Amino acid sequence: MAAVEVSLRNGYDAVTTEAIAAEAGISTRTFFNYYPNKQAAILGERIMLLPDDPIWFTASHRPVIDDVVDLLDQALRDDEPDRRMLNKIMAMIDSHPALHDLFRTKMDDVASALTGLLVARLGADFATESRLLGDLATLALTDAVSRWAVDDNMTIDDITALLRRSLLGVGRLLQPAVGDMVATDGR
Amino acid sequence: MAAVEVSLRNGYDAVTTEAIAAEAGISTRTFFNYYPNKQAAILGERIMLLPDDPIWFTASHRPVIDDVVDLLDQALRDDEPDRRMLNKIMAMIDSHPALHDLFRTKMDDVASALTGLLVARLGADFATESRLLGDLATLALTDAVSRWAVDDNMTIDDITALLRRSLLGVGRLLQPAVGDMVATDGR
Repeated sequence: MAAVEVSLRNGYDAVTTEAIAAEAGISTRTFFNYYPNKQAAILGERIMLLPDDPIWFTASHRPVIDDVVDLLDQALRDDEPDRRMLNKIMAMIDSHPALHDLFRTKMDDVASALTGLLVARLGADFATESRLLGDLATLALTDAVSRWAVDDNMTIDDITALLRRSLLGVGRLLQPAVGDMVATDGR
Repeated sequence: MAAVEVSLRNGYDAVTTEAIAAEAGISTRTFFNYYPNKQAAILGERIMLLPDDPIWFTASHRPVIDDVVDLLDQALRDDEPDRRMLNKIMAMIDSHPALHDLFRTKMDDVASALTGLLVARLGADFATESRLLGDLATLALTDAVSRWAVDDNMTIDDITALLRRSLLGVGRLLQPAVGDMVATDGR
């Protein structure tokens, strides 16, 4: 919080870890107990954490898309994103390449966690599909959360609905012609 | 080519633009006519270019997935990737974060071009799905090309087949009512 406020006031390039620590009312030493550098302080320690091993997810026989959406919905609610803060962070990410790369690295962590859960559920034969779906769902979530951040009329429920709609839309675009299914399915 | 060779011999961190230019038999000044820095020289000016405005793609009524695969297949053949070179570049990307970020930026260019073509075809109402599919197909292509790079038994045809199979696999996972498909499709 302090890091974002100071960055917006002084400009990202001029921000020092000392200024962030002062704003937060902590010593620089304490700052480094929490964050390795100012970028990490601005983005926060984490974007979002997925549960380590949700048994329901790996054991479920429902359609994969339903469970992926439910899992991300749950992670989102646990995360309790702050709309105003997210807005400021997004603006800063947009204008600073170093933050952009760090943000991507953090979203990669979410995608990796999701991929791990998908592999646990589908098996190693589906490693490629799991990774692609892990990345895709993370991108769709990022898109939905970004819209929520700039639209006061959207609720957390709307994020989930938008995520689901986007994934179903991509699924439709990936459908082969009717009757083509058998021919393409033969691995 | 020279940039990759020199980087492997001297180590990426020790490489200078002078050394790359010398290996290529050109002046440093000529080097900077081609590349802004050593990273760009190692990755090449471009990873792959999509055609600017392939009329057949935007006008087609075939399933989108078929045309996306055909488009990427064509771009790949036009690009004529060099397996040995790609192998070396991949190894260098793996070990150098700066190259990794630049590689992602370059793949983003491919994804953006594909997204643009998809929006031209599907309309602005499908902007989100187009962007997600553009990213997904680019990731699937990167995965397939990476496998080809380390497998002498694979041909360019196999890259396309793998790309298609991966996308269809993700499409199946995104189906709302086919949760049992995974168990029944014989893998």
